[in-house]
Amino acid sequence: MNNEHTFARREKAYIQGCIFPDIRVGMQRVNLTPTVDIINGERVTTENPPIYIYDTGGPFTDTHTCNDMKEALPRIREPWIRERHKKGQPVGQLACARAGIITPEMEYVSIRETMNAHELGIETNITPEFVRQEIAAGRSVIPANIRHPEAEPMIIGRAFRVKINTNIGNSATTSGIAEEVEKAMWSCRWGGDTLMDLSTGPAIHETREAILRHTPVPVGTVPIYQALEKVGGEVEALDWEVYRDTLIEQCEQGVDYFTIHAGVLKENVSLAAKRLTGIVSRGGSILSKWCMVKGKENFLYTHFDDILDILATYDVAVSLGDGLRPGSIADANDAAQFAELDVLGTLVERAWAKGVQAFVEGPGHVPMHKIQENMERQESVCHGAPFYTLGPLVTDIAPAYDHITSAIGAAQIAWYGTAMLCYVTPKEHLGLPNLEDMRTGIMAYKIAAHAADLAKGHPAAQIRDNALSKARFEFRWRDQFHLSLAPERAEEYFREGKHLDGEYCTMCGPNFCAMRLSRDIRKK
Amino acid sequence: MNNEHTFARREKAYIQGCIFPDIRVGMQRVNLTPTVDIINGERVTTENPPIYIYDTGGPFTDTHTCNDMKEALPRIREPWIRERHKKGQPVGQLACARAGIITPEMEYVSIRETMNAHELGIETNITPEFVRQEIAAGRSVIPANIRHPEAEPMIIGRAFRVKINTNIGNSATTSGIAEEVEKAMWSCRWGGDTLMDLSTGPAIHETREAILRHTPVPVGTVPIYQALEKVGGEVEALDWEVYRDTLIEQCEQGVDYFTIHAGVLKENVSLAAKRLTGIVSRGGSILSKWCMVKGKENFLYTHFDDILDILATYDVAVSLGDGLRPGSIADANDAAQFAELDVLGTLVERAWAKGVQAFVEGPGHVPMHKIQENMERQESVCHGAPFYTLGPLVTDIAPAYDHITSAIGAAQIAWYGTAMLCYVTPKEHLGLPNLEDMRTGIMAYKIAAHAADLAKGHPAAQIRDNALSKARFEFRWRDQFHLSLAPERAEEYFREGKHLDGEYCTMCGPNFCAMRLSRDIRKK
Repeated sequence: MNNEHTFARREKAYIQGCIFPDIRVGMQRVNLTPTVDIINGERVTTENPPIYIYDTGGPFTDTHTCNDMKEALPRIREPWIRERHKKGQPVGQLACARAGIITPEMEYVSIRETMNAHELGIETNITPEFVRQEIAAGRSVIPANIRHPEAEPMIIGRAFRVKINTNIGNSATTSGIAEEVEKAMWSCRWGGDTLMDLSTGPAIHETREAILRHTPVPVGTVPIYQALEKVGGEVEALDWEVYRDTLIEQCEQGVDYFTIHAGVLKENVSLAAKRLTGIVSRGGSILSKWCMVKGKENFLYTHFDDILDILATYDVAVSLGDGLRPGSIADANDAAQFAELDVLGTLVERAWAKGVQAFVEGPGHVPMHKIQENMERQESVCHGAPFYTLGPLVTDIAPAYDHITSAIGAAQIAWYGTAMLCYVTPKEHLGLPNLEDMRTGIMAYKIAAHAADLAKGHPAAQIRDNALSKARFEFRWRDQFHLSLAPERAEEYFREGKHLDGEYCTMCGPNFCAMRLSRDIRKK
Repeated sequence: MNNEHTFARREKAYIQGCIFPDIRVGMQRVNLTPTVDIINGERVTTENPPIYIYDTGGPFTDTHTCNDMKEALPRIREPWIRERHKKGQPVGQLACARAGIITPEMEYVSIRETMNAHELGIETNITPEFVRQEIAAGRSVIPANIRHPEAEPMIIGRAFRVKINTNIGNSATTSGIAEEVEKAMWSCRWGGDTLMDLSTGPAIHETREAILRHTPVPVGTVPIYQALEKVGGEVEALDWEVYRDTLIEQCEQGVDYFTIHAGVLKENVSLAAKRLTGIVSRGGSILSKWCMVKGKENFLYTHFDDILDILATYDVAVSLGDGLRPGSIADANDAAQFAELDVLGTLVERAWAKGVQAFVEGPGHVPMHKIQENMERQESVCHGAPFYTLGPLVTDIAPAYDHITSAIGAAQIAWYGTAMLCYVTPKEHLGLPNLEDMRTGIMAYKIAAHAADLAKGHPAAQIRDNALSKARFEFRWRDQFHLSLAPERAEEYFREGKHLDGEYCTMCGPNFCAMRLSRDIRKK
């Protein structure tokens, strides 16, 4: 993957903050070539304005910064956190927002969300004050642990661009630390908005440390995995003390959000036992087993307020895990799933009461006609807290292509209001993804997220589509590629046809090109 | 691709007709292994019934027939056509249906559409008489040229399984006849319900002949392409005579449906000229240019009744081309598109008046929030004739991944009622697809179609999902693969994890498998 080639017409650009002049929000600027027309035999050129692309790559997409993964990343949020501390302001974004304080993180995301709109004079309501209000109301979350100052602020909420999360992580049987850090870097470069480290292997602490110090996006984990490692994989040996210590360890390292399966209640486990595919969430199955073996209520539920006190100290957000999500079309929208969702709604309120930002995880496997009910119930039961779904997959029959089955459901549920989508790779149900699988999964989800932004009418989303389509119609092939989600791949496919810069491609051949004929018609 | 390996537990099965005992409807039967439980230390096995899979592969998926592509295919419909002729019945399915005649083709598709339902005792309304009524009403189409008796009958209509079309065809710059025939065969094996030969190169007649004689699914073409070849690529040299001769030539060869851009009216071309991306249909641009240069009305429109008379003779269906379909998000649902749709509605009525089966082509590029309007307008303006859409692509920004952008739109529009989806490959906008691109496109569209069948509540659709999910939950890996859309690919990905037949995969590793934990819970 040749960086220089790819980004030849893309360059890193930074936009400065107004309220906080030390803010520099990185984005990709695509510099376009002019439109060339021949009018009465004269060559007439018209400039095309540059297009800005939301950029999750941090220093990795800036050719002027060193990004060989050996040095740690710049700690951009450190002065902001220090300043808040000096001024005696609250630690957390939610507490600040409620106190009427606009943080640098809030201005940062407001700039990030409105690129192109500013430049092209499009009105948007996404001001720093609007961001503050959304956070204060709990409708949006900026996951930003004070111990992870390397992360560039981003916001999860239905009023904003739909975000995508990628999962990485080794299991007991595969891959090492360097490999995971490399995956993290590529995830950010390709467009992952957040990253979950789902490692379960022996070097779990060291892997996470390496990832956090090299990742410019928020990082999430599922702490029960490490807690279970600590007790030798014996579910019955899990207890609050080992979990609490694990939480603190991970908070100290800088994890920005935790998936916590506190909604798996003992009484609901039996509902899931009747299902075609039972419990398919790892966290859900661990805690269900714990409840069954111990005959006690889930300790994450009984200790939820203790958990929140720890999270509030570091401003870690809670992602309320859906341990009873359906794992097949047959189990979608069933009693187990919705019973848990009701519990999650009460946990959202408890999180807010403790000043902890919260979002809610969702399914899973859901046929298209049952997707909308998921969004509507979540919105109502969880009081408007952001929804974060895995797909959903709209059929069970396509292992090896579940990035597609799930992108279909993801696009739809994001249109209805889901704020963040957890990607699915072609290896889902079959094995752990390699780098190429991750790229495929990210592309499928960038598509789903952007399609939803268009359908939701995000003020700046269609600017990129229009610029790309104009480049396509005018045979500005390289402009088209640079505006696309996957410049290298698009150019690679095009080059197979061997007609670079000709006014046709191998689809039609030189005699039948619809767009050329259409341009001819327009000239007349 | 090792056929024997893939189909080890899949075998061809044939179901006989009741009204017409010589009908043998081919399908794939997946023979499943039993469920094994250990109950009180005893091994208890429970049989799982075989699952039937709709099969478009004809002789190619029957290991007992020769299918090396050297011999021509069996002409299964020849006796049925001869019989109708002897009895003095009408040539066409529509005319028969209106006369109250149930044809063998109608019984054939009724059996094909209800596999699994019969065996599992599920009630369906899809009887031969129901098929007849749907065809008589124009709501469904069986494209079946009397000169293409090799094609197995299939039905296109919203009351039935959503179908997918694949495109093949060489252009002036690429590929030969053998290559196209091989593509056709793989298209059928992988699940393409119909096949369009869009060849534009010099050997267009011979290519088509070879494809028709080796293809067990209906074949469509766009005759204007060959007509244009005949006049040396000069649009202004096109006229009714050369087009008429081309139609007759292709009818004689056995093409089952023609895309005819008779809805591109001179007065509507100027509407498209204002667009961001003008006209992106090849046929549409050819006819628009013809109208402009000649200053006359589109000769396909003025000669539409003549065209219908030819089609009726062979029972070729007309696919009313959308020459002004939008080629970008910006142009979706615009005046040009809907003006043409109104014209297509009048052409549907004229086709029906001449006893010609008709369906209507649709876009294109449409953002999600504008898709439903497409379906609703088509349904109303075109009097319930089936809709056949290309995607739609829900964003413009993903060249190289447009099989995904379009599968998202395709699933949605098929759920709303579109009867057939034209596939899009990763090479869309960039070049001609190779075999692997075709496979990728077909898989994306099989997913979209099946997802829509589930959402529409097709009585037998979910049986396959349930069987696969049950196999997944019970770690019957090979059963899962054989039930999947892509057995080889799924198994290949799984094997990369090197844990075949273990009760876990590399996703979780041996200590954390959610489904194993969940099964343990159920046992307790």
